Amino acid sequence: MRLGTVRVGEARFAATEREGLWYALDVPPGTPLNAVLAEGQEEVDRLAVSAARPLAGATPVAPLRPGKIVAIGLNYLDHIREAGMDKPERPLMFAKFPSSVIGPGEPIVIDADLTERVDWEVELAAVIGTPLRHASPSQALAGVAGYTVANDVSARDLQFADGQWTRGKSLDTFCPLGPAIVTPDELGDPQALRLWTAVNGETVQDSSTAEMLFGVAELLAYCSRAFTLEPGDLVLTGTPWGCGEFMDPRRSLRPGDTVEVGVEGIGTLSNPVAGGPR
Amino acid sequence: MRLGTVRVGEARFAATEREGLWYALDVPPGTPLNAVLAEGQEEVDRLAVSAARPLAGATPVAPLRPGKIVAIGLNYLDHIREAGMDKPERPLMFAKFPSSVIGPGEPIVIDADLTERVDWEVELAAVIGTPLRHASPSQALAGVAGYTVANDVSARDLQFADGQWTRGKSLDTFCPLGPAIVTPDELGDPQALRLWTAVNGETVQDSSTAEMLFGVAELLAYCSRAFTLEPGDLVLTGTPWGCGEFMDPRRSLRPGDTVEVGVEGIGTLSNPVAGGPR
Repeated sequence: MRLGTVRVGEARFAATEREGLWYALDVPPGTPLNAVLAEGQEEVDRLAVSAARPLAGATPVAPLRPGKIVAIGLNYLDHIREAGMDKPERPLMFAKFPSSVIGPGEPIVIDADLTERVDWEVELAAVIGTPLRHASPSQALAGVAGYTVANDVSARDLQFADGQWTRGKSLDTFCPLGPAIVTPDELGDPQALRLWTAVNGETVQDSSTAEMLFGVAELLAYCSRAFTLEPGDLVLTGTPWGCGEFMDPRRSLRPGDTVEVGVEGIGTLSNPVAGGPR
Repeated sequence: MRLGTVRVGEARFAATEREGLWYALDVPPGTPLNAVLAEGQEEVDRLAVSAARPLAGATPVAPLRPGKIVAIGLNYLDHIREAGMDKPERPLMFAKFPSSVIGPGEPIVIDADLTERVDWEVELAAVIGTPLRHASPSQALAGVAGYTVANDVSARDLQFADGQWTRGKSLDTFCPLGPAIVTPDELGDPQALRLWTAVNGETVQDSSTAEMLFGVAELLAYCSRAFTLEPGDLVLTGTPWGCGEFMDPRRSLRPGDTVEVGVEGIGTLSNPVAGGPR
Protein backbone atom coordinates (compact mmCIF):
# COMPACT_ATOMS: atom_id res chain seq x y z
CA MET A 1 0.00 0.00 0.00
CA ARG A 2 0.91 3.66 -0.37
CA LEU A 3 0.88 6.05 2.61
CA GLY A 4 1.47 9.76 2.84
CA THR A 5 0.27 13.12 4.01
CA VAL A 6 -2.00 15.34 1.97
CA ARG A 7 -3.18 18.89 2.21
CA VAL A 8 -6.76 19.91 1.52
CA GLY A 9 -6.93 23.68 1.87
CA GLU A 10 -5.23 24.37 5.19
CA ALA A 11 -5.95 20.94 6.68
CA ARG A 12 -3.52 18.03 6.63
CA PHE A 13 -4.41 14.36 6.68
CA ALA A 14 -2.50 11.13 7.12
CA ALA A 15 -3.78 9.23 4.12
CA THR A 16 -3.45 6.25 1.81
CA GLU A 17 -3.38 6.34 -2.00
CA ARG A 18 -5.28 3.89 -4.19
CA GLU A 19 -5.43 4.22 -7.97
CA GLY A 20 -4.46 7.88 -7.82
CA LEU A 21 -7.01 8.85 -5.16
CA TRP A 22 -6.14 9.72 -1.55
CA TYR A 23 -8.25 8.38 1.34
CA ALA A 24 -7.97 9.78 4.88
CA LEU A 25 -6.93 7.35 7.57
CA ASP A 26 -9.43 7.11 10.42
CA VAL A 27 -7.28 8.89 13.01
CA PRO A 28 -7.98 12.13 14.92
CA PRO A 29 -7.53 15.23 12.71
CA GLY A 30 -3.96 16.47 12.68
CA THR A 31 -2.42 13.13 13.71
CA PRO A 32 0.95 13.05 11.96
CA LEU A 33 1.81 9.98 9.90
CA ASN A 34 4.77 9.33 12.24
CA ALA A 35 2.36 8.67 15.09
CA VAL A 36 0.38 6.29 12.88
CA LEU A 37 3.53 4.38 11.86
CA ALA A 38 4.55 4.08 15.51
CA GLU A 39 1.34 2.09 16.12
CA GLY A 40 2.88 -0.82 14.26
CA GLN A 41 2.37 -2.51 10.93
CA GLU A 42 -0.85 -4.35 11.80
CA GLU A 43 -2.58 -1.15 12.86
CA VAL A 44 -1.27 0.71 9.80
CA ASP A 45 -2.62 -2.09 7.59
CA ARG A 46 -6.00 -1.98 9.31
CA LEU A 47 -6.24 1.81 8.97
CA ALA A 48 -5.19 1.79 5.32
CA VAL A 49 -7.51 -1.03 4.28
CA SER A 50 -10.49 0.50 6.07
CA ALA A 51 -9.90 4.06 4.78
CA ALA A 52 -13.02 4.81 2.78
CA ARG A 53 -13.18 8.61 2.77
CA PRO A 54 -11.80 9.90 -0.55
CA LEU A 55 -10.36 13.39 -0.23
CA ALA A 56 -11.32 15.76 -3.02
CA GLY A 57 -8.60 18.20 -4.04
CA ALA A 58 -5.91 16.44 -2.02
CA THR A 59 -2.31 17.52 -2.71
CA PRO A 60 0.51 15.37 -1.39
CA VAL A 61 2.94 17.18 0.91
CA ALA A 62 6.05 15.69 2.55
CA PRO A 63 4.84 12.25 3.67
CA LEU A 64 6.26 12.76 7.15
CA ARG A 65 8.53 14.87 9.30
CA PRO A 66 11.37 12.51 10.23
CA GLY A 67 12.63 12.35 13.80
CA LYS A 68 16.16 12.17 12.42
CA ILE A 69 17.63 11.83 8.97
CA VAL A 70 20.61 9.50 8.72
CA ALA A 71 22.31 9.85 5.36
CA ILE A 72 24.96 7.71 3.71
CA GLY A 73 27.62 9.01 1.33
CA LEU A 74 29.54 7.23 -1.46
CA ASN A 75 27.34 4.15 -1.42
CA TYR A 76 26.89 3.48 -5.17
CA LEU A 77 29.67 1.76 -7.06
CA ASP A 78 29.05 3.93 -10.14
CA HIS A 79 29.14 7.13 -8.01
CA ILE A 80 32.38 6.04 -6.30
CA ARG A 81 33.99 5.57 -9.73
CA GLU A 82 32.64 8.95 -10.91
CA ALA A 83 33.96 10.77 -7.82
CA GLY A 84 37.35 9.06 -8.21
CA MET A 85 37.21 7.86 -4.60
CA ASP A 86 38.18 4.61 -2.93
CA LYS A 87 35.42 2.26 -1.80
CA PRO A 88 34.64 3.09 1.83
CA GLU A 89 35.36 0.19 4.19
CA ARG A 90 32.18 0.93 6.09
CA PRO A 91 29.16 3.15 5.44
CA LEU A 92 30.04 6.86 5.44
CA MET A 93 27.40 8.39 7.70
CA PHE A 94 26.29 12.00 7.99
CA ALA A 95 23.20 13.92 9.08
CA LYS A 96 20.62 16.17 7.49
CA PHE A 97 18.48 18.23 9.84
CA PRO A 98 14.73 17.48 9.63
CA SER A 99 14.03 21.20 9.18
CA SER A 100 15.28 20.77 5.59
CA VAL A 101 12.28 18.64 4.56
CA ILE A 102 9.83 19.86 1.90
CA GLY A 103 7.21 18.05 -0.16
CA PRO A 104 6.45 17.57 -3.85
CA GLY A 105 6.13 20.83 -5.78
CA GLU A 106 7.63 23.03 -3.08
CA PRO A 107 10.57 25.13 -4.20
CA ILE A 108 14.18 24.27 -3.45
CA VAL A 109 15.49 27.71 -2.46
CA ILE A 110 19.06 28.66 -3.33
CA ASP A 111 20.29 31.46 -1.09
CA ALA A 112 22.83 33.24 -3.28
CA ASP A 113 24.49 34.69 -0.17
CA LEU A 114 25.44 31.18 0.95
CA THR A 115 26.02 28.94 -2.05
CA GLU A 116 26.45 28.82 -5.79
CA ARG A 117 27.05 25.06 -6.23
CA VAL A 118 23.79 23.29 -5.46
CA ASP A 119 23.54 19.69 -6.61
CA TRP A 120 20.90 16.98 -6.89
CA GLU A 121 21.05 13.44 -5.47
CA VAL A 122 18.23 10.97 -5.99
CA GLU A 123 18.02 8.48 -3.12
CA LEU A 124 15.91 5.59 -1.95
CA ALA A 125 14.83 6.50 1.60
CA ALA A 126 13.84 3.89 4.19
CA VAL A 127 11.21 4.94 6.73
CA ILE A 128 11.59 3.19 10.07
CA GLY A 129 8.47 1.59 11.55
CA THR A 130 9.81 -0.43 14.50
CA PRO A 131 12.60 0.58 16.89
CA LEU A 132 15.84 -1.01 15.73
CA ARG A 133 18.81 -1.52 18.06
CA HIS A 134 21.54 -4.10 17.50
CA ALA A 135 19.40 -5.49 14.68
CA SER A 136 20.58 -8.16 12.26
CA PRO A 137 20.18 -7.28 8.56
CA SER A 138 16.97 -9.33 8.33
CA GLN A 139 15.55 -7.86 11.55
CA ALA A 140 16.41 -4.42 10.16
CA LEU A 141 14.48 -5.01 6.93
CA ALA A 142 11.49 -6.22 8.93
CA GLY A 143 11.53 -2.90 10.83
CA VAL A 144 11.06 -0.80 7.69
CA ALA A 145 7.58 0.72 7.42
CA GLY A 146 8.13 1.65 3.81
CA TYR A 147 10.22 3.49 1.28
CA THR A 148 10.01 6.93 -0.25
CA VAL A 149 12.01 9.07 -2.67
CA ALA A 150 14.43 11.72 -1.37
CA ASN A 151 16.44 14.38 -3.12
CA ASP A 152 19.55 14.86 -0.96
CA VAL A 153 20.13 18.41 -2.22
CA SER A 154 23.69 19.48 -1.43
CA ALA A 155 25.50 22.82 -1.37
CA ARG A 156 28.84 21.44 -2.58
CA ASP A 157 30.80 24.61 -1.79
CA LEU A 158 29.64 24.60 1.85
CA GLN A 159 29.94 20.81 2.16
CA PHE A 160 33.58 20.74 1.09
CA ALA A 161 34.68 24.04 2.68
CA ASP A 162 33.17 23.09 6.06
CA GLY A 163 34.65 19.58 6.06
CA GLN A 164 31.73 18.48 8.21
CA TRP A 165 28.84 18.05 5.74
CA THR A 166 25.96 18.90 8.08
CA ARG A 167 25.42 22.55 7.11
CA GLY A 168 25.77 22.11 3.33
CA LYS A 169 23.28 19.24 3.45
CA SER A 170 20.78 20.86 5.83
CA LEU A 171 19.84 24.21 4.31
CA ASP A 172 16.10 24.80 4.50
CA THR A 173 14.29 23.12 1.54
CA PHE A 174 17.27 20.81 0.83
CA CYS A 175 15.42 17.55 1.54
CA PRO A 176 12.44 17.07 -0.80
CA LEU A 177 10.54 13.88 0.13
CA GLY A 178 7.65 12.04 -1.48
CA PRO A 179 5.31 11.62 -3.15
CA ALA A 180 4.32 8.63 -0.97
CA ILE A 181 5.69 5.92 1.28
CA VAL A 182 5.32 2.47 -0.30
CA THR A 183 5.22 -0.52 2.02
CA PRO A 184 7.87 -3.23 1.56
CA ASP A 185 5.34 -5.91 0.53
CA GLU A 186 4.17 -3.72 -2.35
CA LEU A 187 7.61 -2.44 -3.41
CA GLY A 188 9.43 -5.78 -3.55
CA ASP A 189 13.23 -6.17 -3.51
CA PRO A 190 14.73 -2.79 -2.51
CA GLN A 191 17.98 -3.75 -4.28
CA ALA A 192 16.42 -4.03 -7.74
CA LEU A 193 14.85 -0.63 -8.35
CA ARG A 194 15.63 1.83 -11.13
CA LEU A 195 16.20 5.39 -9.87
CA TRP A 196 16.81 8.54 -11.84
CA THR A 197 17.00 12.33 -11.87
CA ALA A 198 15.91 14.71 -14.62
CA VAL A 199 16.76 18.42 -14.67
CA ASN A 200 14.47 20.44 -16.93
CA GLY A 201 13.43 17.16 -18.52
CA GLU A 202 16.97 15.96 -19.26
CA THR A 203 17.97 12.72 -17.55
CA VAL A 204 21.15 13.22 -15.52
CA GLN A 205 21.09 10.25 -13.13
CA ASP A 206 19.84 6.81 -14.21
CA SER A 207 20.92 3.75 -12.29
CA SER A 208 19.70 0.91 -10.11
CA THR A 209 19.71 0.26 -6.38
CA ALA A 210 21.58 -2.93 -7.36
CA GLU A 211 24.66 -0.64 -7.55
CA MET A 212 24.63 -0.04 -3.78
CA LEU A 213 27.86 -1.00 -2.04
CA PHE A 214 26.04 -1.58 1.27
CA GLY A 215 22.40 -2.64 0.80
CA VAL A 216 19.47 -1.30 2.81
CA ALA A 217 19.50 -4.22 5.28
CA GLU A 218 23.20 -3.83 5.96
CA LEU A 219 22.97 -0.03 6.31
CA LEU A 220 20.16 -0.20 8.85
CA ALA A 221 21.90 -2.92 10.84
CA TYR A 222 25.06 -0.79 10.83
CA CYS A 223 23.18 2.28 12.10
CA SER A 224 21.46 0.23 14.77
CA ARG A 225 24.78 -0.92 16.20
CA ALA A 226 25.56 2.73 17.02
CA PHE A 227 22.14 4.10 17.98
CA THR A 228 18.44 3.39 18.05
CA LEU A 229 16.53 3.87 14.82
CA GLU A 230 13.10 5.04 15.94
CA PRO A 231 9.70 4.97 14.23
CA GLY A 232 9.55 7.91 11.83
CA ASP A 233 13.32 8.09 11.34
CA LEU A 234 14.57 8.21 7.78
CA VAL A 235 17.67 6.55 6.36
CA LEU A 236 18.90 7.91 3.00
CA THR A 237 20.83 5.20 1.23
CA GLY A 238 23.14 7.14 -1.08
CA THR A 239 23.05 8.33 -4.67
CA PRO A 240 24.28 6.85 -7.95
CA TRP A 241 26.46 8.43 -10.69
CA GLY A 242 25.34 11.62 -12.40
CA CYS A 243 25.71 14.39 -9.84
CA GLY A 244 26.37 17.80 -11.42
CA GLU A 245 29.43 18.40 -9.27
CA PHE A 246 31.41 15.68 -11.06
CA MET A 247 30.41 16.60 -14.62
CA ASP A 248 32.87 18.32 -16.93
CA PRO A 249 32.03 21.17 -17.03
CA ARG A 250 30.46 21.14 -13.56
CA ARG A 251 26.69 21.68 -13.44
CA SER A 252 24.67 23.24 -10.64
CA LEU A 253 20.99 23.93 -10.08
CA ARG A 254 19.83 27.46 -10.88
CA PRO A 255 16.66 29.39 -10.03
CA GLY A 256 14.10 28.56 -12.70
CA ASP A 257 15.20 24.92 -13.05
CA THR A 258 12.89 22.02 -12.29
CA VAL A 259 14.42 18.89 -10.78
CA GLU A 260 12.60 15.57 -10.79
CA VAL A 261 13.81 12.52 -8.91
CA GLY A 262 12.19 9.12 -9.12
CA VAL A 263 12.40 5.57 -7.87
CA GLU A 264 10.70 2.68 -9.65
CA GLY A 265 7.56 1.57 -7.83
CA ILE A 266 7.35 4.70 -5.68
CA GLY A 267 6.97 7.51 -8.17
CA THR A 268 8.48 10.86 -9.01
CA LEU A 269 9.09 13.92 -6.90
CA SER A 270 9.33 17.19 -8.79
CA ASN A 271 10.48 20.50 -7.30
CA PRO A 272 11.06 23.89 -8.88
CA VAL A 273 14.22 25.77 -7.96
CA ALA A 274 13.88 29.33 -6.66
CA GLY A 275 16.39 32.00 -5.73
CA GLY A 276 17.05 34.30 -2.81
CA PRO A 277 16.75 33.91 0.92
CA ARG A 278 13.59 32.06 1.77
CA MET B 1 12.85 30.55 36.42
CA ARG B 2 13.89 26.92 36.08
CA LEU B 3 12.03 24.48 33.82
CA GLY B 4 12.42 20.80 33.22
CA THR B 5 10.84 17.39 33.06
CA VAL B 6 10.49 15.14 36.07
CA ARG B 7 9.54 11.54 36.63
CA VAL B 8 7.28 10.45 39.47
CA GLY B 9 7.02 6.67 39.29
CA GLU B 10 6.19 5.98 35.64
CA ALA B 11 4.58 9.38 35.01
CA ARG B 12 6.40 12.34 33.49
CA PHE B 13 5.57 15.99 34.05
CA ALA B 14 6.67 19.26 32.50
CA ALA B 15 7.57 21.17 35.64
CA THR B 16 9.24 24.18 37.21
CA GLU B 17 11.75 24.12 40.07
CA ARG B 18 11.66 26.55 43.00
CA GLU B 19 14.01 26.24 45.96
CA GLY B 20 14.75 22.62 45.18
CA LEU B 21 11.11 21.54 44.79
CA TRP B 22 9.47 20.67 41.48
CA TYR B 23 5.95 21.92 40.65
CA ALA B 24 3.91 20.49 37.76
CA LEU B 25 2.89 22.94 35.05
CA ASP B 26 -0.86 23.08 34.50
CA VAL B 27 -0.85 21.33 31.12
CA PRO B 28 -2.52 18.07 30.08
CA PRO B 29 -0.68 15.00 31.46
CA GLY B 30 2.11 13.83 29.17
CA THR B 31 2.51 17.21 27.41
CA PRO B 32 6.22 17.38 26.55
CA LEU B 33 8.13 20.49 27.60
CA ASN B 34 8.85 21.20 23.92
CA ALA B 35 5.15 21.77 23.31
CA VAL B 36 5.01 24.13 26.28
CA LEU B 37 8.01 26.12 25.05
CA ALA B 38 6.43 26.41 21.61
CA GLU B 39 3.54 28.32 23.21
CA GLY B 40 5.85 31.28 23.69
CA GLN B 41 7.55 32.99 26.57
CA GLU B 42 4.49 34.73 28.01
CA GLU B 43 2.56 31.48 28.29
CA VAL B 44 5.58 29.70 29.76
CA ASP B 45 5.92 32.48 32.35
CA ARG B 46 2.24 32.25 33.22
CA LEU B 47 2.36 28.47 33.60
CA ALA B 48 5.53 28.55 35.71
CA VAL B 49 4.35 31.32 38.02
CA SER B 50 0.96 29.69 38.56
CA ALA B 51 2.35 26.17 39.12
CA ALA B 52 1.28 25.35 42.67
CA ARG B 53 1.28 21.55 42.76
CA PRO B 54 4.50 20.32 44.39
CA LEU B 55 5.49 16.88 43.16
CA ALA B 56 6.63 14.51 45.90
CA GLY B 57 9.42 12.14 44.89
CA ALA B 58 10.13 13.97 41.64
CA THR B 59 13.34 12.99 39.84
CA PRO B 60 14.57 15.22 37.00
CA VAL B 61 15.00 13.44 33.67
CA ALA B 62 16.26 14.99 30.42
CA PRO B 63 14.51 18.39 30.37
CA LEU B 64 13.36 17.87 26.80
CA ARG B 65 13.78 15.80 23.68
CA PRO B 66 15.27 18.23 21.15
CA GLY B 67 13.93 18.39 17.60
CA LYS B 68 17.50 18.70 16.40
CA ILE B 69 20.86 19.10 18.08
CA VAL B 70 23.23 21.52 16.36
CA ALA B 71 26.71 21.23 17.83
CA ILE B 72 29.73 23.48 17.40
CA GLY B 73 33.34 22.28 17.49
CA LEU B 74 36.56 24.13 18.39
CA ASN B 75 34.78 27.16 19.82
CA TYR B 76 36.82 27.84 22.97
CA LEU B 77 40.13 29.65 22.64
CA ASP B 78 41.70 27.50 25.38
CA HIS B 79 40.49 24.28 23.66
CA ILE B 80 41.83 25.44 20.28
CA ARG B 81 45.27 25.99 21.86
CA GLU B 82 45.09 22.59 23.59
CA ALA B 83 44.15 20.79 20.38
CA GLY B 84 46.93 22.58 18.51
CA MET B 85 44.46 23.73 15.86
CA ASP B 86 44.04 26.99 13.97
CA LYS B 87 41.14 29.24 14.91
CA PRO B 88 38.20 28.38 12.63
CA GLU B 89 37.16 31.26 10.38
CA ARG B 90 33.52 30.41 11.00
CA PRO B 91 31.69 28.12 13.41
CA LEU B 92 32.46 24.43 12.80
CA MET B 93 29.04 22.81 12.77
CA PHE B 94 28.10 19.18 13.23
CA ALA B 95 25.09 17.16 14.36
CA LYS B 96 24.21 14.86 17.23
CA PHE B 97 21.11 12.72 16.80
CA PRO B 98 18.36 13.37 19.39
CA SER B 99 18.24 9.63 20.14
CA SER B 100 21.50 10.12 22.08
CA VAL B 101 19.81 12.19 24.83
CA ILE B 102 19.69 10.92 28.43
CA GLY B 103 18.98 12.68 31.72
CA PRO B 104 20.76 13.17 35.03
CA GLY B 105 21.85 9.93 36.68
CA GLU B 106 21.30 7.75 33.63
CA PRO B 107 24.34 5.72 32.57
CA ILE B 108 26.59 6.67 29.66
CA VAL B 109 27.03 3.26 28.03
CA ILE B 110 30.35 2.41 26.38
CA ASP B 111 29.92 -0.37 23.84
CA ALA B 112 33.32 -2.05 23.86
CA ASP B 113 32.62 -3.49 20.39
CA LEU B 114 32.53 0.05 18.96
CA THR B 115 34.85 2.33 20.90
CA GLU B 116 37.59 2.49 23.49
CA ARG B 117 38.22 6.25 23.47
CA VAL B 118 35.18 7.93 25.00
CA ASP B 119 35.65 11.54 26.08
CA TRP B 120 33.73 14.18 28.02
CA GLU B 121 32.84 17.72 26.87
CA VAL B 122 30.95 20.12 29.11
CA GLU B 123 28.86 22.58 27.08
CA LEU B 124 26.42 25.40 27.58
CA ALA B 125 23.33 24.43 25.56
CA ALA B 126 20.83 26.97 24.25
CA VAL B 127 17.20 25.82 24.00
CA ILE B 128 15.29 27.57 21.21
CA GLY B 129 11.91 29.06 22.12
CA THR B 130 10.98 31.08 19.03
CA PRO B 131 11.59 30.12 15.39
CA LEU B 132 14.78 31.82 14.19
CA ARG B 133 15.52 32.37 10.51
CA HIS B 134 17.89 35.04 9.18
CA ALA B 135 18.05 36.39 12.73
CA SER B 136 20.44 39.11 13.86
CA PRO B 137 22.54 38.26 16.92
CA SER B 138 20.19 40.23 19.19
CA GLN B 139 17.07 38.69 17.63
CA ALA B 140 18.71 35.29 18.10
CA LEU B 141 19.30 35.86 21.82
CA ALA B 142 15.70 36.97 22.24
CA GLY B 143 14.60 33.63 20.74
CA VAL B 144 16.32 31.55 23.41
CA ALA B 145 13.87 29.94 25.85
CA GLY B 146 16.66 29.06 28.25
CA TYR B 147 19.94 27.31 28.81
CA THR B 148 20.85 23.88 30.08
CA VAL B 149 24.01 21.83 30.62
CA ALA B 150 25.08 19.22 28.05
CA ASN B 151 27.82 16.63 28.05
CA ASP B 152 28.82 16.22 24.39
CA VAL B 153 30.16 12.70 24.95
CA SER B 154 32.40 11.72 22.03
CA ALA B 155 33.83 8.42 20.77
CA ARG B 156 37.13 9.89 19.56
CA ASP B 157 38.21 6.78 17.67
CA LEU B 158 34.97 6.73 15.64
CA GLN B 159 34.90 10.51 15.26
CA PHE B 160 38.36 10.70 13.71
CA ALA B 161 38.26 7.41 11.75
CA ASP B 162 34.90 8.28 10.16
CA GLY B 163 35.93 11.83 9.23
CA GLN B 164 32.30 12.83 9.51
CA TRP B 165 31.68 13.21 13.24
CA THR B 166 27.99 12.25 13.31
CA ARG B 167 28.31 8.61 14.36
CA GLY B 168 30.99 9.08 17.03
CA LYS B 169 28.93 11.90 18.56
CA SER B 170 25.54 10.18 18.35
CA LEU B 171 25.88 6.83 20.08
CA ASP B 172 22.92 6.13 22.35
CA THR B 173 23.41 7.79 25.79
CA PHE B 174 26.07 10.19 24.42
CA CYS B 175 24.12 13.39 25.12
CA PRO B 176 23.35 13.81 28.83
CA LEU B 177 21.21 16.94 29.37
CA GLY B 178 19.99 18.72 32.49
CA PRO B 179 19.27 19.10 35.29
CA ALA B 180 17.03 22.03 34.30
CA ILE B 181 16.54 24.77 31.72
CA VAL B 182 17.19 28.21 33.19
CA THR B 183 15.54 31.17 31.51
CA PRO B 184 17.78 33.96 30.18
CA ASP B 185 16.44 36.59 32.63
CA GLU B 186 17.48 34.39 35.56
CA LEU B 187 20.81 33.22 34.13
CA GLY B 188 22.20 36.60 33.10
CA ASP B 189 25.07 37.09 30.62
CA PRO B 190 25.66 33.75 28.84
CA GLN B 191 29.25 34.82 28.12
CA ALA B 192 30.29 35.10 31.77
CA LEU B 193 29.58 31.65 33.22
CA ARG B 194 32.02 29.25 34.80
CA LEU B 195 31.76 25.69 33.44
CA TRP B 196 33.59 22.57 34.54
CA THR B 197 33.85 18.78 34.41
CA ALA B 198 34.86 16.41 37.18
CA VAL B 199 35.64 12.71 36.63
CA ASN B 200 35.40 10.65 39.80
CA GLY B 201 35.55 13.91 41.73
CA GLU B 202 38.70 15.21 40.02
CA THR B 203 38.28 18.47 38.11
CA VAL B 204 39.39 18.04 34.48
CA GLN B 205 37.71 20.99 32.73
CA ASP B 206 37.38 24.40 34.40
CA SER B 207 36.87 27.47 32.26
CA SER B 208 34.46 30.26 31.42
CA THR B 209 32.04 30.89 28.58
CA ALA B 210 34.01 34.13 28.14
CA GLU B 211 36.55 31.92 26.28
CA MET B 212 34.10 31.29 23.41
CA LEU B 213 35.42 32.31 20.00
CA PHE B 214 31.87 32.80 18.66
CA GLY B 215 29.39 33.76 21.37
CA VAL B 216 25.88 32.34 21.71
CA ALA B 217 24.23 35.22 19.84
CA GLU B 218 26.63 34.93 16.93
CA LEU B 219 26.33 31.11 16.77
CA LEU B 220 22.54 31.18 16.66
CA ALA B 221 22.51 33.93 14.04
CA TYR B 222 24.99 31.90 11.97
CA CYS B 223 22.81 28.76 12.19
CA SER B 224 19.71 30.75 11.28
CA ARG B 225 21.29 31.96 8.05
CA ALA B 226 21.45 28.32 6.91
CA PHE B 227 18.27 26.84 8.36
CA THR B 228 15.38 27.46 10.71
CA LEU B 229 16.01 26.97 14.40
CA GLU B 230 12.71 25.69 15.75
CA PRO B 231 11.22 25.69 19.26
CA GLY B 232 12.73 22.77 21.15
CA ASP B 233 15.92 22.70 19.08
CA LEU B 234 19.19 22.65 21.00
CA VAL B 235 22.44 24.40 20.10
CA LEU B 236 25.56 23.11 21.85
CA THR B 237 28.11 25.89 21.98
CA GLY B 238 31.42 24.03 22.24
CA THR B 239 33.70 22.87 25.02
CA PRO B 240 36.74 24.43 26.76
CA TRP B 241 40.21 22.93 27.42
CA GLY B 242 40.55 19.74 29.42
CA CYS B 243 39.25 16.93 27.20
CA GLY B 244 40.86 13.58 27.96
CA GLU B 245 41.83 13.03 24.32
CA PHE B 246 44.40 15.82 24.43
CA MET B 247 45.97 14.91 27.79
CA ASP B 248 49.39 13.28 27.97
CA PRO B 249 48.89 10.42 28.56
CA ARG B 250 45.45 10.35 26.91
CA ARG B 251 42.50 9.71 29.24
CA SER B 252 39.20 8.06 28.39
CA LEU B 253 36.06 7.27 30.32
CA ARG B 254 35.79 3.71 31.65
CA PRO B 255 32.87 1.70 33.03
CA GLY B 256 32.62 2.47 36.74
CA ASP B 257 33.57 6.14 36.33
CA THR B 258 31.26 8.98 37.28
CA VAL B 259 31.36 12.13 35.16
CA GLU B 260 29.88 15.40 36.37
CA VAL B 261 29.51 18.48 34.18
CA GLY B 262 28.31 21.83 35.42
CA VAL B 263 27.57 25.37 34.35
CA GLU B 264 27.33 28.24 36.85
CA GLY B 265 23.72 29.23 37.50
CA ILE B 266 22.28 26.09 35.95
CA GLY B 267 23.67 23.27 38.08
CA THR B 268 25.46 19.99 37.72
CA LEU B 269 24.66 16.92 35.69
CA SER B 270 26.14 13.67 36.94
CA ASN B 271 26.16 10.39 35.04
CA PRO B 272 27.70 7.02 35.83
CA VAL B 273 29.57 5.21 33.06
CA ALA B 274 28.57 1.64 32.25
CA GLY B 275 29.95 -0.96 29.89
CA GLY B 276 28.62 -3.30 27.23
CA PRO B 277 25.99 -2.91 24.54
CA ARG B 278 22.99 -1.16 25.97
